[in-house]
Amino acid sequence: MTKGRIEAFSDGVLAIIITIMVLELKVPHGSDLHALRPVVPVFLSYVLSFVYVGIYWNNHHHLFHATKEIGGGVMWANLVLLFCLSLIPVATAWVGDNPRAPWPAALYGVLLLLCGLAWWVLERSIIALNGPGSELARAVGRRVKENLSTVGYVVGIALAFVRPWLAYSFYAGVALAWIVPDRRIESAVRAR
Amino acid sequence: MTKGRIEAFSDGVLAIIITIMVLELKVPHGSDLHALRPVVPVFLSYVLSFVYVGIYWNNHHHLFHATKEIGGGVMWANLVLLFCLSLIPVATAWVGDNPRAPWPAALYGVLLLLCGLAWWVLERSIIALNGPGSELARAVGRRVKENLSTVGYVVGIALAFVRPWLAYSFYAGVALAWIVPDRRIESAVRAR
Amino acid sequence: MTKGRIEAFSDGVLAIIITIMVLELKVPHGSDLHALRPVVPVFLSYVLSFVYVGIYWNNHHHLFHATKEIGGGVMWANLVLLFCLSLIPVATAWVGDNPRAPWPAALYGVLLLLCGLAWWVLERSIIALNGPGSELARAVGRRVKENLSTVGYVVGIALAFVRPWLAYSFYAGVALAWIVPDRRIESAVRAR
Amino acid sequence: MTKGRIEAFSDGVLAIIITIMVLELKVPHGSDLHALRPVVPVFLSYVLSFVYVGIYWNNHHHLFHATKEIGGGVMWANLVLLFCLSLIPVATAWVGDNPRAPWPAALYGVLLLLCGLAWWVLERSIIALNGPGSELARAVGRRVKENLSTVGYVVGIALAFVRPWLAYSFYAGVALAWIVPDRRIESAVRAR
Repeated sequence: MTKGRIEAFSDGVLAIIITIMVLELKVPHGSDLHALRPVVPVFLSYVLSFVYVGIYWNNHHHLFHATKEIGGGVMWANLVLLFCLSLIPVATAWVGDNPRAPWPAALYGVLLLLCGLAWWVLERSIIALNGPGSELARAVGRRVKENLSTVGYVVGIALAFVRPWLAYSFYAGVALAWIVPDRRIESAVRAR
Repeated sequence: MTKGRIEAFSDGVLAIIITIMVLELKVPHGSDLHALRPVVPVFLSYVLSFVYVGIYWNNHHHLFHATKEIGGGVMWANLVLLFCLSLIPVATAWVGDNPRAPWPAALYGVLLLLCGLAWWVLERSIIALNGPGSELARAVGRRVKENLSTVGYVVGIALAFVRPWLAYSFYAGVALAWIVPDRRIESAVRAR
Repeated sequence: MTKGRIEAFSDGVLAIIITIMVLELKVPHGSDLHALRPVVPVFLSYVLSFVYVGIYWNNHHHLFHATKEIGGGVMWANLVLLFCLSLIPVATAWVGDNPRAPWPAALYGVLLLLCGLAWWVLERSIIALNGPGSELARAVGRRVKENLSTVGYVVGIALAFVRPWLAYSFYAGVALAWIVPDRRIESAVRAR
Repeated sequence: MTKGRIEAFSDGVLAIIITIMVLELKVPHGSDLHALRPVVPVFLSYVLSFVYVGIYWNNHHHLFHATKEIGGGVMWANLVLLFCLSLIPVATAWVGDNPRAPWPAALYGVLLLLCGLAWWVLERSIIALNGPGSELARAVGRRVKENLSTVGYVVGIALAFVRPWLAYSFYAGVALAWIVPDRRIESAVRAR
């Protein structure tokens, strides 16, 4: 089974998700600078989500680049990941409408956690197909960054009920740590 | 005629259909958990439709992978299928707005039936081009699963007027049976 | 200059145009069959526009398949065509909202005329690049169908002010004549 | 790292941006020609933005065509450019709603300036990877057109507070100068 179409389809879905969020950026009512004030929190939540989808696209690119075989299981694991990511625009809009409320901040973190889980399942299903001795399996290795991200999400979710902005700081911190693409896979590919 | 562009166009349309449904997930009014209550049926109908579009994408991938020749007839059969599938987001939103009404439940089933019919026409037009002795023709074979799905849709449509949730159970059951991609085509391709 | 990316970009834009029209199909208010009544004209205008975008995609596929060289002029001619086609969803929605009004019927025809004009410019710019002796130039030939379509559009626009449904009949008639992809180009390609 | 997927993803995002703007073209209220009057400024702002996104797509095509190596830095520079471009539809809609107000006219110019800056960063990051002696580095050369564009944007922004239509004239003038794709890169590629 060729991986070309699964990459093309994922690129399409990710491109739509990342741009659909713009639609949530409502056109300001009024024609002066004050009209931009209520757009600011929506804009900031849009930036954070854009970065997250960008990170997933980057790592998706790396993961499939290092993959040789694809099967039905990988396809469905990939669809589950895309499903989780496709919920980000709604969550982003909810967060942008209620920037100081605890529940949106917490559920945004839960969604990030779900996306991370779906990513983990996808990675496992690809490694299962390529064999535990494959370069990908060795490249992913100890998953330190993934585990620290999970801790970051969970702490963020808990802090959402104390101060929502603390939760967003943790989510932004995790994003920063991931802006650098997964060098482990990249370097394993280069070594080939 | 190359099949690359028909695959790319179909991937694009299917990626848009599957993500456009997110736009129907309205941002909750309010900032607590209660605000999520009215979103639940819309969310469930979204999950079901996501799975159906995912199934069609998976099988579309397999079908065209096993295809060698493409012509004008296949292109239009493919466009008819895409047209039927493009109606799923509206039907999904209607179902999500009226989760207990019989007509939306029944017409959702009629749409699934139409998509199945369009798929059958596409499959026939491809087999007609590749010849009845082609591996695809042999792979598709007796169409047991397709016929059972048709029965499932029809029973679901009838039950919509008794208890709508029974209809959705049947539609979900058919989806479950299809989550496994069409192993007949897949195995025929592997045997090659 | 490679033609791969211009094809991919055009596929993307055409896929979005053809599916964006679904967003105009408003979710019916109410949960019975009567609620579907006001959706019918919108649905019919959607079908007509879907067929037209499908025709353009099909012929675009054939045109670029028969093309060898691409340059800046072709790129901009292609963008002008995509711009004209991207206006179809709004025109379709206007027609669907006012199925018996003369102006929407007439302007829909004017838009079809503009798309045909943009297509002609694109075809010319490609032939100019490939040379008047190229197989494409010979394949396009006398343009009988294109000229008859232009007549069909103009008659339709005029009839819009008599009976709008007559205009739509003419537009549908032209579409029917084009559902068969451009056999001249197709056969020239096969002869190669 | 292959550049195929970054091109495909960029094509997807640019295709969505350019077509999403259509959604801002509201369906006219009423069924005669007068109903089209309020749509005119929105339409004109849409044309200008369509041309700008088209220019970026054209130059993006040329830039990546002339590129050999791609890395994590280029990916993020590309995402930043896509982010800036994805703000164009909202800015366009704001401008279309307030065609005679100074702030929308000025901020539209600021956004164009930001897009130009992001483009410059992307170009730098690609040249850094391909080496200062690469054909791309030599092709880009003295950046006369880029610097004149910057001047055009800044003058336009300043004039927005005098007469907004003067600002749009400057933005349109810069666009006109760019409709011709970057011949420097094109000719360098041909010389290869």
